[in-house]
Amino acid sequence: MNIQHISEPDHSIIKALSEDIGSGDVTTGSVVPPGTMVKGRFLAKEAGVVCGLEVARRVFHLLDESVLFQAMVKDGDKVTKGTVLGEVSGPAAAILSGERVALNFLQRLSGISTKVSQLVGKVSGSGVTLVDTRKTTPGLRVLEKYAVRTGGGSNHRMNLSDGVLIKDNHIKAAGGITPAVKAAKQKAPRTLKIEVEVENLDQVREALKAGADIIMLDNMDLETMAAAVSIIDCKALTEASGNMDQKDLMEVARTGVDIISLGALTHSVKSLDISLKLE
Amino acid sequence: MNIQHISEPDHSIIKALSEDIGSGDVTTGSVVPPGTMVKGRFLAKEAGVVCGLEVARRVFHLLDESVLFQAMVKDGDKVTKGTVLGEVSGPAAAILSGERVALNFLQRLSGISTKVSQLVGKVSGSGVTLVDTRKTTPGLRVLEKYAVRTGGGSNHRMNLSDGVLIKDNHIKAAGGITPAVKAAKQKAPRTLKIEVEVENLDQVREALKAGADIIMLDNMDLETMAAAVSIIDCKALTEASGNMDQKDLMEVARTGVDIISLGALTHSVKSLDISLKLE
Amino acid sequence: MNIQHISEPDHSIIKALSEDIGSGDVTTGSVVPPGTMVKGRFLAKEAGVVCGLEVARRVFHLLDESVLFQAMVKDGDKVTKGTVLGEVSGPAAAILSGERVALNFLQRLSGISTKVSQLVGKVSGSGVTLVDTRKTTPGLRVLEKYAVRTGGGSNHRMNLSDGVLIKDNHIKAAGGITPAVKAAKQKAPRTLKIEVEVENLDQVREALKAGADIIMLDNMDLETMAAAVSIIDCKALTEASGNMDQKDLMEVARTGVDIISLGALTHSVKSLDISLKLE
Amino acid sequence: MNIQHISEPDHSIIKALSEDIGSGDVTTGSVVPPGTMVKGRFLAKEAGVVCGLEVARRVFHLLDESVLFQAMVKDGDKVTKGTVLGEVSGPAAAILSGERVALNFLQRLSGISTKVSQLVGKVSGSGVTLVDTRKTTPGLRVLEKYAVRTGGGSNHRMNLSDGVLIKDNHIKAAGGITPAVKAAKQKAPRTLKIEVEVENLDQVREALKAGADIIMLDNMDLETMAAAVSIIDCKALTEASGNMDQKDLMEVARTGVDIISLGALTHSVKSLDISLKLE
Amino acid sequence: MNIQHISEPDHSIIKALSEDIGSGDVTTGSVVPPGTMVKGRFLAKEAGVVCGLEVARRVFHLLDESVLFQAMVKDGDKVTKGTVLGEVSGPAAAILSGERVALNFLQRLSGISTKVSQLVGKVSGSGVTLVDTRKTTPGLRVLEKYAVRTGGGSNHRMNLSDGVLIKDNHIKAAGGITPAVKAAKQKAPRTLKIEVEVENLDQVREALKAGADIIMLDNMDLETMAAAVSIIDCKALTEASGNMDQKDLMEVARTGVDIISLGALTHSVKSLDISLKLE
Amino acid sequence: MNIQHISEPDHSIIKALSEDIGSGDVTTGSVVPPGTMVKGRFLAKEAGVVCGLEVARRVFHLLDESVLFQAMVKDGDKVTKGTVLGEVSGPAAAILSGERVALNFLQRLSGISTKVSQLVGKVSGSGVTLVDTRKTTPGLRVLEKYAVRTGGGSNHRMNLSDGVLIKDNHIKAAGGITPAVKAAKQKAPRTLKIEVEVENLDQVREALKAGADIIMLDNMDLETMAAAVSIIDCKALTEASGNMDQKDLMEVARTGVDIISLGALTHSVKSLDISLKLE
Repeated sequence: MNIQHISEPDHSIIKALSEDIGSGDVTTGSVVPPGTMVKGRFLAKEAGVVCGLEVARRVFHLLDESVLFQAMVKDGDKVTKGTVLGEVSGPAAAILSGERVALNFLQRLSGISTKVSQLVGKVSGSGVTLVDTRKTTPGLRVLEKYAVRTGGGSNHRMNLSDGVLIKDNHIKAAGGITPAVKAAKQKAPRTLKIEVEVENLDQVREALKAGADIIMLDNMDLETMAAAVSIIDCKALTEASGNMDQKDLMEVARTGVDIISLGALTHSVKSLDISLKLE
Repeated sequence: MNIQHISEPDHSIIKALSEDIGSGDVTTGSVVPPGTMVKGRFLAKEAGVVCGLEVARRVFHLLDESVLFQAMVKDGDKVTKGTVLGEVSGPAAAILSGERVALNFLQRLSGISTKVSQLVGKVSGSGVTLVDTRKTTPGLRVLEKYAVRTGGGSNHRMNLSDGVLIKDNHIKAAGGITPAVKAAKQKAPRTLKIEVEVENLDQVREALKAGADIIMLDNMDLETMAAAVSIIDCKALTEASGNMDQKDLMEVARTGVDIISLGALTHSVKSLDISLKLE
Repeated sequence: MNIQHISEPDHSIIKALSEDIGSGDVTTGSVVPPGTMVKGRFLAKEAGVVCGLEVARRVFHLLDESVLFQAMVKDGDKVTKGTVLGEVSGPAAAILSGERVALNFLQRLSGISTKVSQLVGKVSGSGVTLVDTRKTTPGLRVLEKYAVRTGGGSNHRMNLSDGVLIKDNHIKAAGGITPAVKAAKQKAPRTLKIEVEVENLDQVREALKAGADIIMLDNMDLETMAAAVSIIDCKALTEASGNMDQKDLMEVARTGVDIISLGALTHSVKSLDISLKLE
Repeated sequence: MNIQHISEPDHSIIKALSEDIGSGDVTTGSVVPPGTMVKGRFLAKEAGVVCGLEVARRVFHLLDESVLFQAMVKDGDKVTKGTVLGEVSGPAAAILSGERVALNFLQRLSGISTKVSQLVGKVSGSGVTLVDTRKTTPGLRVLEKYAVRTGGGSNHRMNLSDGVLIKDNHIKAAGGITPAVKAAKQKAPRTLKIEVEVENLDQVREALKAGADIIMLDNMDLETMAAAVSIIDCKALTEASGNMDQKDLMEVARTGVDIISLGALTHSVKSLDISLKLE
Repeated sequence: MNIQHISEPDHSIIKALSEDIGSGDVTTGSVVPPGTMVKGRFLAKEAGVVCGLEVARRVFHLLDESVLFQAMVKDGDKVTKGTVLGEVSGPAAAILSGERVALNFLQRLSGISTKVSQLVGKVSGSGVTLVDTRKTTPGLRVLEKYAVRTGGGSNHRMNLSDGVLIKDNHIKAAGGITPAVKAAKQKAPRTLKIEVEVENLDQVREALKAGADIIMLDNMDLETMAAAVSIIDCKALTEASGNMDQKDLMEVARTGVDIISLGALTHSVKSLDISLKLE
Repeated sequence: MNIQHISEPDHSIIKALSEDIGSGDVTTGSVVPPGTMVKGRFLAKEAGVVCGLEVARRVFHLLDESVLFQAMVKDGDKVTKGTVLGEVSGPAAAILSGERVALNFLQRLSGISTKVSQLVGKVSGSGVTLVDTRKTTPGLRVLEKYAVRTGGGSNHRMNLSDGVLIKDNHIKAAGGITPAVKAAKQKAPRTLKIEVEVENLDQVREALKAGADIIMLDNMDLETMAAAVSIIDCKALTEASGNMDQKDLMEVARTGVDIISLGALTHSVKSLDISLKLE
């Protein structure tokens, strides 16, 4: 992940530093003698998939350009308890002031990658693709979607402007699936696929006929889902959706759907336990 | 929670809307006829403690000032599955475009309040205070600390500038607890208490003698913790810390500590399930 | 066009006002007596398609909320020389200070709409769609793409994140069309179509076989273009591109392509002549 | 042109990159192998006056500091079709993602310089000065005024705070030319000249008597203009204004005016055709 | 003074509120019961010239739109000790949180207006104009220049872009006064006067001959200054400058200079004593 | 003072440069030949305590990274008239354009440090601590508080979020000192001390009993103040407040108070006279 000072991740890092430092780190400022240099190691305290090392580097760089951060692993690597993820060295003031923010990012993103990796493992060999949703933490969309990719998942649309997803409420407002898809074909940018959310087989047939590129099978039981896949017959992509984290993903995959989407990849995640130990 | 356009929560809401809307909601823009009005209800799909209703109101207001949002409960209320949290009505374009952001905030903040409330319940009657840490989601510090208060917890320091917390690394850099506390007393603003993190009873005695206002007992077993409380004897506040979410909080409380701090209140939270149903 | 204070158009308006007002309008501030009220009319001084009325309204509203702006026509309307586009009334200070910025937006956006409308007229009845490109004025992307739609055109992708367009340089870097399309299918969000730019019929066949959703026929003569359309045979959308403003668009349309894209819709535009006359 | 990160041009570049990159360049990100290096040349595809090379350099530098940009000509140079304007080399990701924004600036600014240069040529030897107006593209004021200077023109005031220009509407509001000029002399900063827009010879005499430093002769025929110049007799600067792009500039110059101002220098410009060819 | 949310003063107010409120007013938030309403009066505790009432109004409005602020006097009024400047009423939370920022602005701006008014009084009847300099408090330029006007003074240039002031160092770099003025005439916008700083009578003559519009007589004794005024003989404006706050301004005025500039109007000011008393 | 581009001081510097440079330095831009290099010295023109050297360095660095700034003394040093504070060398354009902003900061901050140092000298040996207040210049809080420390003073709370200070109006709203302190203890972060403002000895006793950590003795005569100190008897810190700049500070110190706070340290300060002399 390339983090330049015009990028969205950089804005998130600057905001996080700003809210944590406030008007200044009074502890470090009053207790640590100016000029003190330190060195430390980021340690995984449990097994998982690492994500966010460049973010950690950038946190320290923004505080003091002379801090050195050397990653020992790379984003996406599976690590075990005790693995040294990276070393940081330089002025104590910057390292102590930046420690918490670096860890907050690293732990949350690694928590997502780890969870995604586990779920991807459950459908191994099935050919199905796990994707995220827009149920991300407010302000961290770009970074969390990166963590999903890092864990082996794929991304659904990034935001409301790069994918047409016609849901139940849109269908009602447009007066049906057919007019809704027609309107989208006329007015939305030509580069976007049109996806329609359906709840039963009649809707499947209507969406298919209207020319949907992707059909989202929402909250269907496995049997109905398999029937829908059969009806669609590769004329559109199929996406299974709706509390998927509470189901057996391999069984869902066996219905033949192309994609399974899970909000829980990002909205309910346990941080990976990582700490910074100074020498 | 008062959300004005100069406040930190407002910046978080604007950023969340900005990242979700991108260059525009192409689905709503192409499918929903201009001028369509809708009405909907926010429903709790599981029991919990609600938090973030004013944030939801603000999301819609920022998109279109004519949207009406009427809360049916208030932040901090315990709700059951099926409770209507609020109603929203107005232009479909704003409501459909803002729905996901409003829910992302509401679900995450309510998830925190609910977890805090459960843990506070576990130490009911003990007189101990549960507090949060700086292990919050980057960018959401102010809102998440508000959710902790809403759930019945209290706040530890908001950021590095409003509390002196001398940790292990500061102690090393300063050459010991005594010189560290002395330096803090001389240089930090007079309005801040001085807290020292200690790991054993010798350090407890040194911190107490140096004049610490709060002594954090980090990763101590219950017996040592009780001994520390006895040594301190109300001459400083005592705070238990270190993987507290994996312990029996009532047993910790019984050691006599004043405060228990838990990073897990904010860093590993399951969102409360809430949805918006349009009529 | 809905202009709220979190929207991209609003940022453009604020920047334009900021750069034009500098540290204050010294002429109006020193010459016009405080409290003076005025009323004026926006007049078309040549025929065209109007675009940007809501932008003009917002310019004045940002300067003084008490200014009234009443549009007499609406965006997309064809007007003749002399048509009154709207009336503005209120404090002279705000109206005189905002006049130039309001006109700068209105004239440029109407210039685009007018040009698009003329070109759309040239392919009337052919079924082909005219689309824009990313060759927009830096900083005005969203507004200029809106002006294209207002003039009867359609939008190609808004930016680099909402469409996969594999150009010559990408093909070289990836080692060919086939591996490039394969990589895009694996890694890009599922909601985006994949478009490939080709220069000859061999590339057309390769792109089609690789599974491109859209094939851009770049700088082809009419005969080759027609052959490409025949090969593709509705299995992908076809887009004609490359100095299209110098060709007979109806002849291009007759090759059977679905889309014609023109950079000149936005990069070389004559402003529509509009003035504000105060009573 | 010096572009530092506190300058107005830098803000324009950052905004342009931000609107074009959105949440990320999905094509380059998915298709181009990480670490790929490329080299390319900016080529003039038609003759003109170059402007914006430092802007192009800055675009790439903001995306990746390791990109090298070497200009082969300098701003203000006249180039012929085929001239290599500069070379860029470095990471393919940054160069492919920045190409469009760099070209959008370079083409528009060079389009202005080219047009200005042509018009300046038409009044060669006359001693008259061609100046721009405030009819610039919203958001690009500073850069477009730079392009005017680069093409050999001069600048009228930059914005409403660095020049007093009393127009018809100000005159009405102040109750006449005399009281308007008097008020400006009393209240505007002493460092600014006072310019008055007049439409006939009576107004010329009144403005002169009131002490105007510059008198703008608006929409006068050549004969009246010459009479006005004669009346003013070098006691004030004279400026010819009003649809000047539709007149024979040399004839206007021969009336003896000091300055000719043209909105069309910036509001109706054809981009210069420039492309980036990668090796 | 009109304060809209796109104006420079508004940015200064928002920054001041932001730095004072930090992550929230913990005293008011914890001690004052929600819903408490209060009413208070701003009182002058010493005599002076009031400035900044609209700023105070805006401070409270930004915190809570329901706060009412009613000014009892207006900017520029001379008040005596005990005068009620205005009344504020509404939610206690907003009034208590905004009190200090409102006073900080009001006291500083009124301090400037008061000082300016006193100095203007000292040259009453002389016809000389007192002007400020660029020696303002960083970040408060626009507001402090407004306070100078409010006190009866006038403004020198607002910043480096709205006035040409050729100082000693510019003269050295350009190779003399004559080439410096010539270059400025060629390259600077036509709307700006050209001012030259001179130190002796030879320089006065050179500047005059070169065509300077304003000649700044820097650090001259009264006799030399009078000689300079005589030489210039109304062919340029004359400005006396250099530690003017340590001189008898009436004696300076009697030399016949048009303008006296004083940095001390803004760089060394005692705040006017004003307080807010709640009922 | 470490000034990084995410720090509050950096924002203040950027704002100051922005307001002073406007759309460009027209004098330097038109008069100084490109490529001119200069060298200059910052000279103290009166004795004082220097503060702000890193700010001056940063001003030039932001304008042009190639400018060299070498400090000859360091912040907090006492200097005499004629002392060279630092040397600056590099491109004339950056040095001439940045001179005024660098001096505006340096002079104001040094003015504060000098004043603080003088007042600290008056209570030398007494053991009392001089602290500032929130009566700082809007927008310069962090820098001015730094200048107070540089002059030998200490800081009271930085803003409303890092100290609980219960004033008269809070006491009224809460219904008395006792309930106010109780509420603060329950709801404010545990890391903050609670300070109460009192006006008489009864209030002293109530605040002490309620558990205040700091008691502010506001506007008391010396005798009452001494009695209050005696009553408090080291059970809380004592702070003398109220027009302290008009009193004999040593007499106040002799009452035994721990802290004296003075708004005048920052709200009414004479700039230290410093100039930049180019060679």
